[in-house]
Amino acid sequence: MADTIRDSAPARYDDLRAVFINCTLKKSPAMSHTQGLMDRSIAIMEQVGLSVESMRATDYVLPPGVQPDMTEHGYDRDDWPAMHKKIMDAQILVLGSPIWLGEKSSVCTLVIERLYGNSGELNGHGQSSYYGRVGGCIITGNEDGIKHCAMNILYSLGHLGYTIPPQADAGWIGEAGPGPSYMDPEAHAQDNDFTNRNTTIMTWNLIHLARMFKDSGGVPAFGNQRDKWQAGERFGFENPEYR
Amino acid sequence: MADTIRDSAPARYDDLRAVFINCTLKKSPAMSHTQGLMDRSIAIMEQVGLSVESMRATDYVLPPGVQPDMTEHGYDRDDWPAMHKKIMDAQILVLGSPIWLGEKSSVCTLVIERLYGNSGELNGHGQSSYYGRVGGCIITGNEDGIKHCAMNILYSLGHLGYTIPPQADAGWIGEAGPGPSYMDPEAHAQDNDFTNRNTTIMTWNLIHLARMFKDSGGVPAFGNQRDKWQAGERFGFENPEYR
Amino acid sequence: MADTIRDSAPARYDDLRAVFINCTLKKSPAMSHTQGLMDRSIAIMEQVGLSVESMRATDYVLPPGVQPDMTEHGYDRDDWPAMHKKIMDAQILVLGSPIWLGEKSSVCTLVIERLYGNSGELNGHGQSSYYGRVGGCIITGNEDGIKHCAMNILYSLGHLGYTIPPQADAGWIGEAGPGPSYMDPEAHAQDNDFTNRNTTIMTWNLIHLARMFKDSGGVPAFGNQRDKWQAGERFGFENPEYR
Amino acid sequence: MADTIRDSAPARYDDLRAVFINCTLKKSPAMSHTQGLMDRSIAIMEQVGLSVESMRATDYVLPPGVQPDMTEHGYDRDDWPAMHKKIMDAQILVLGSPIWLGEKSSVCTLVIERLYGNSGELNGHGQSSYYGRVGGCIITGNEDGIKHCAMNILYSLGHLGYTIPPQADAGWIGEAGPGPSYMDPEAHAQDNDFTNRNTTIMTWNLIHLARMFKDSGGVPAFGNQRDKWQAGERFGFENPEYR
Repeated sequence: MADTIRDSAPARYDDLRAVFINCTLKKSPAMSHTQGLMDRSIAIMEQVGLSVESMRATDYVLPPGVQPDMTEHGYDRDDWPAMHKKIMDAQILVLGSPIWLGEKSSVCTLVIERLYGNSGELNGHGQSSYYGRVGGCIITGNEDGIKHCAMNILYSLGHLGYTIPPQADAGWIGEAGPGPSYMDPEAHAQDNDFTNRNTTIMTWNLIHLARMFKDSGGVPAFGNQRDKWQAGERFGFENPEYR
Repeated sequence: MADTIRDSAPARYDDLRAVFINCTLKKSPAMSHTQGLMDRSIAIMEQVGLSVESMRATDYVLPPGVQPDMTEHGYDRDDWPAMHKKIMDAQILVLGSPIWLGEKSSVCTLVIERLYGNSGELNGHGQSSYYGRVGGCIITGNEDGIKHCAMNILYSLGHLGYTIPPQADAGWIGEAGPGPSYMDPEAHAQDNDFTNRNTTIMTWNLIHLARMFKDSGGVPAFGNQRDKWQAGERFGFENPEYR
Repeated sequence: MADTIRDSAPARYDDLRAVFINCTLKKSPAMSHTQGLMDRSIAIMEQVGLSVESMRATDYVLPPGVQPDMTEHGYDRDDWPAMHKKIMDAQILVLGSPIWLGEKSSVCTLVIERLYGNSGELNGHGQSSYYGRVGGCIITGNEDGIKHCAMNILYSLGHLGYTIPPQADAGWIGEAGPGPSYMDPEAHAQDNDFTNRNTTIMTWNLIHLARMFKDSGGVPAFGNQRDKWQAGERFGFENPEYR
Repeated sequence: MADTIRDSAPARYDDLRAVFINCTLKKSPAMSHTQGLMDRSIAIMEQVGLSVESMRATDYVLPPGVQPDMTEHGYDRDDWPAMHKKIMDAQILVLGSPIWLGEKSSVCTLVIERLYGNSGELNGHGQSSYYGRVGGCIITGNEDGIKHCAMNILYSLGHLGYTIPPQADAGWIGEAGPGPSYMDPEAHAQDNDFTNRNTTIMTWNLIHLARMFKDSGGVPAFGNQRDKWQAGERFGFENPEYR
């Protein structure tokens, strides 16, 4: 089967890397429903040759803060610099989050804050260092909030420099009210055709755009170079004579 | 100047089209602050050769609804089909919105609902018909809400099939509290370096990704074809043997 | 049954009025799922003696804008002043909205903009004129977004001067993906115990706080009087000597 | 001055308690801009006799999770039970948060998750245990997001059982783009009349409704009792004969 998919896919992807960060509140080895859905996306990527690293944020020491390394700001340990390196070695980043009170998890917010802590860094072209990468997200809950969580996560990734492919989120929730979660057999969530389709579409669109950027050298460097703007270049931007 | 920018830009863009829809609550010819900022982005695009059509939604008859043509659902007139055609003829769509009570305008929500009304349509590859296009937004207010509005607009565009380039939003707001708006001279908003830089970056990233998609034929058609999924193809998606 | 409830309720409510505004995109007489759930709340209120007026916004002419009467701003007709009068005659306001792309309807956003258009008005105490009233919302969709829509609607009402009782929203959505809506028999949505309970709790909390405010004369007038603040009174607010 | 305010206020408040939780990412003793604005509200409350406890969440050990005591779920220490007791001893809760990427802090999200962890608890009337309390929030950032953060925080508090008084949020942000924060002298934020007025109004409305609930015994217990609903009582809710 894997061979079939590899053969029918429009390109090879063995040189691409993806990082999935599960922002569940639970530490390993507790079962994570969100991981269950993330694993569906990961399985597609691995089948077609991508290298995927899947991390659970709560298994690491990640102090709150918006500095690249919080050991320089009073904390004894900070696993973020190593995690960030893996993120920068990958072309794809997928954040997974559960929903609590309709909102993404505090752990997910913390990971976004830590990503933001490196947002002052530029690549060799003067673009935000996250440029040329693509981002997506996977959300699970038992009753409400996929889109609310996804719109914030994807916006944050885009703000940092990630490109957001079409339909770059997938998720599962049940009917309004308490009920089983994604991995609970009685939810039959894994049979949800809509969730499965969206997971597949998200996964492939992440792969396709990562392929495009890897082949083309990323987002063309013109107009989006923060260092050149800082130095006075305006790339065609002009204020009208309004004064 | 325009020649300089055209010459220094990394590609030619004469074959690209952009549509800007201003979702101000005000009808023409009333001055729109949002249009003021939109015009800065439009000016860059026109300088480098793109064809830009700028429309103000309130100047058209757009009944509420989520059907492609509301004249088939009890309304006498619906300008949406013609507006939609222009949107589909363009590679770039930028929605502009003012902020009221921290939220995008009702007119902007209506335009998104109308875009959604065509979301059942597929292109020749079986992808959502909006695929291969890029979207951005421009937000102005006097005190708060750029990111709140932008995250929703960009998410909606992404959900429909648009690709969202990095940093695809720009906006201006003043300090907390009542105060002047973007075009009011006392706001000095047109001198805001952050707004001007973000407007330029957004504009160029829209242009760059539109160029890439036009050259490459859009998002590769594999894994994201709704008709093939419907027909049973799974593109590598597999459920675990959990039953 | 109605007598039983009236007898067991802790107070009489015959002097209270409620306005429900259905912000469906559909004009009457088209069936509205949102109305279906609104009617459950209305039925409780009517059973215990409140006067309830239920309006469908799309049945009225409500131009976009943030002025109290848009006929003074270029529109031929504006039903808002009459609608606003009914809202001000009531102690309770409930907005109902469907969900499209995870967001409240454009019609709901428009109604909020129109409410905002009167926000400059003060009551006899110098408080925002909406003070002493309570607000809630009812949301229906087929798959996601109750909380996202509710948090914005309730926040807007609170910003205008409404008090938000505990758990002042109710809604129904089905499992992720396309599916039946609230009134479709196959949804069995009307049997959803969580939705029914929340609808009941919302309704009673609106009634209880409306009763409290009617009896007490509203929110005490001290510290929240915009006219007195404007005139220089500070109600204990002091800036530290930081200069 | 304090005597004047106490004398002119419409009631006495010496028996009321308020808890303010600062959700800055920074540990003490680092300066917190959010604390700066929180202190303005606290000062009013203390002037009129309320007992106020102000805590900075990062100074405590608060593991992620949605259980009342995470030491029963694999964590060595959890300061939440003690913090929660203080919250329950108070009639007023105010959450303070900075803004990062337009969003409330991860610490704020964590505090809300921990509040949610106790949401299964009922008071003596069978209502959610948070009933009869009032909530507000204070937000500071340097450029955007007060309303986005506030609407989520206030909604979460309301969902848990808090009543949200009118205009129960206050905040300060500067003009779009990087710039000084609330406590930076060059921001002149402490002179912002809008922020000062809103802080005062929020503070007084929290006090007024706390006074009302303390005097009246909370939200009347009818229709909102989860135990009685569970036991089959319906408080006037009836399904139509649709089957």
